[in-house]
Amino acid sequence: MSISCFVCALALVASSASISPAQESARLAQDPAVKAALDAAKRNEPHFLDEQIRICEIPAPPFHEDARGRELERLFRQMGLQNVRIDKAGNVIGVRPGAAVHPNLLFQAHLDTVFPPETNVKVTREGDVLKGPGIGDDCRGLAMMLGVIQALNDAKVQTPGTITFVADTGEEGLGDLRGTKNLFNETLKGQIDKFVSVDGTGLGITNVGVGSYRYRATFKGPGGHSFGAFGMANPIQAMGRAIAKIDSFEVPSSPKTTFNVGRVGGGTSVNAIPFECWMEVDMRSSDKDSLETLHGKYNAAVQQAVEEENKRWNGRSPVSVDNALVGYRPAGITPADSPIVLAAIAVTKLFGAPGALREGSTDSNVPMNLGIPAVTIGSGGAGSGAHSLNETFNTKDSWLGTQRGLLLAVTLAR
Amino acid sequence: MSISCFVCALALVASSASISPAQESARLAQDPAVKAALDAAKRNEPHFLDEQIRICEIPAPPFHEDARGRELERLFRQMGLQNVRIDKAGNVIGVRPGAAVHPNLLFQAHLDTVFPPETNVKVTREGDVLKGPGIGDDCRGLAMMLGVIQALNDAKVQTPGTITFVADTGEEGLGDLRGTKNLFNETLKGQIDKFVSVDGTGLGITNVGVGSYRYRATFKGPGGHSFGAFGMANPIQAMGRAIAKIDSFEVPSSPKTTFNVGRVGGGTSVNAIPFECWMEVDMRSSDKDSLETLHGKYNAAVQQAVEEENKRWNGRSPVSVDNALVGYRPAGITPADSPIVLAAIAVTKLFGAPGALREGSTDSNVPMNLGIPAVTIGSGGAGSGAHSLNETFNTKDSWLGTQRGLLLAVTLAR
Repeated sequence: MSISCFVCALALVASSASISPAQESARLAQDPAVKAALDAAKRNEPHFLDEQIRICEIPAPPFHEDARGRELERLFRQMGLQNVRIDKAGNVIGVRPGAAVHPNLLFQAHLDTVFPPETNVKVTREGDVLKGPGIGDDCRGLAMMLGVIQALNDAKVQTPGTITFVADTGEEGLGDLRGTKNLFNETLKGQIDKFVSVDGTGLGITNVGVGSYRYRATFKGPGGHSFGAFGMANPIQAMGRAIAKIDSFEVPSSPKTTFNVGRVGGGTSVNAIPFECWMEVDMRSSDKDSLETLHGKYNAAVQQAVEEENKRWNGRSPVSVDNALVGYRPAGITPADSPIVLAAIAVTKLFGAPGALREGSTDSNVPMNLGIPAVTIGSGGAGSGAHSLNETFNTKDSWLGTQRGLLLAVTLAR
Repeated sequence: MSISCFVCALALVASSASISPAQESARLAQDPAVKAALDAAKRNEPHFLDEQIRICEIPAPPFHEDARGRELERLFRQMGLQNVRIDKAGNVIGVRPGAAVHPNLLFQAHLDTVFPPETNVKVTREGDVLKGPGIGDDCRGLAMMLGVIQALNDAKVQTPGTITFVADTGEEGLGDLRGTKNLFNETLKGQIDKFVSVDGTGLGITNVGVGSYRYRATFKGPGGHSFGAFGMANPIQAMGRAIAKIDSFEVPSSPKTTFNVGRVGGGTSVNAIPFECWMEVDMRSSDKDSLETLHGKYNAAVQQAVEEENKRWNGRSPVSVDNALVGYRPAGITPADSPIVLAAIAVTKLFGAPGALREGSTDSNVPMNLGIPAVTIGSGGAGSGAHSLNETFNTKDSWLGTQRGLLLAVTLAR
């Protein structure tokens, strides 16, 4: 028996002998320091609901999260996080060191909203209900994260591993997860062992990251008179061939894999061969390989359509295509029986929620795609109308979300 | 030999013995009354250029030709035409009786322009050049027609047959030849033996009427989220199938037959299954049968595409189509060796122009389609920028156009 195999065997014995995630989280919840932190989280909740409103009233439109980011940077410093900085993608980073550098848990919420700069971001409060664009998604996540940091500080909780807190950029729409991509590809490359993002409300757990490709394909030709110039290749007709091919794609129903031609446009007049047209296409899957296969099929279909169109018109005034990738969210799954998911379920159940698992498209897609254990959790309370101007957040028992997040962070930072 | 065959033989002898159209028009040009009329046409030209400007400054947008029509009605009465009236399509009709009711030559120019009501229709004059929207197409045609009537009156020309003068509506674009269709289908149904429309400038002759069908097909379905509702039929994808089928149509190159998908649009977001999209399609041919065949293929392709789309998604949330015909111009040809075309060529050559034949899409399409001898002739002078705000008409030697039109009218009204 070689030494390495002896180590393997030992590890196996240790794993089998170790207590379950449910037992571990239940034990931690009774640890005096952690218990004190959970109490602090509940006690501090009214303050962090005020902070949630204040943060929400600092606009953070897509690609313009800097003002809100600077406020988070100030708060991170004020709360004593270490090495506080803003990276080139606009992510605000602060470290709460543990006894060791590893395991290093990245715990984050996103700064950006879907709302354009001119949006009125004033928040109103009526009874338990806060109303304002972004109040739940993800100002609640940011405030809940701050509540976790403050409670850990108040109770002087010392974790065996490190927790790196981040307020990240570009989670929404065309932001295309650029903040989190930059964290894993550059700023914190190779340094993160586990990942939790706080996004949305309630006590849900997302362990499947639905990936997507988004394209805008523009077909071009010289154009001309429909009668006089007849015989030229036609960009709209090339695009029609591409769409017909896409429509015939076969995709697996499990893991769910989808495609959609969502928008088209182009042409100037019914009696003119168009010089330009375009289509926007969306493809999704929670399975990396299925998504890559579909991506390949799509690219081939667009090229084939153009070739067929040019051949059909004998190469006269050929059409070309600019097939632009305008969005990419990598797909990934953190297995339902992995330690991080089991821990999330166990912790969630301690707070009376079912701990059911969901699919979604969030910052977790990035680490999931890299094989790094990751989940996205809700931030407590109850939300409605996310991505609308009528977004609300119901604060009733929202402290449970902060406590759940805190206990999960402490469970994973070891 | 039966009596009928004896009549045939006589007709044949008469035909062989009759003088050629070239000889006939040359002879008529020397007829004292006709010669006096030709002189009057030249002498009156400056007055009718002023009239051309005045008429052009009365707006006549598509479907709103009534103001200009009332002025033509007034002029027709002033010039002594008989039975002057405006029919339900807005055509202004006036008769110059001949010695007999037949042959009845319909001689017309169109009232309508392509310009919307808010267009500034002020005409400017610089040297020989008049500039203003519609100045050539077809205010020149209207003024030239008035010049013909006045010259015939001045010289007291008595034609053997009748000439019915018309200022007609709806020649342009979506007007869809509605004025001329109404003349042949209702107002003057069965009464017209020959047809000349004056359209465009120069001394051209159009004897081939390119027909067209125009469609706007709108595809509809319930729409939904690209991922959540995946599996529903998609209107854009149904349309793509239709376009791919259209692109594969085989059409004859002679008689030239064409098709074009000119514009497309639809969809609200890349990640939404669209609830609606549309395409605009144009098809043309100078051959009636080829055009009807293509029309049938198009309708079948659209229906098949929708059926395929619904089958492909197992009938879930099916797509439907509203396949609207938004334009129809009948096709037709007046043979190059027919008496009316030979007469037009001969008359034109007398004025030093080559008498070349053209294809076009004009009011003549309607009688050509019915087998009634028809040509469209230019109105003299030289035009540029038709259908643009910078349209011009160069008046140099424009009287040649009036003379050519007059001599052709006199040649045909017998």
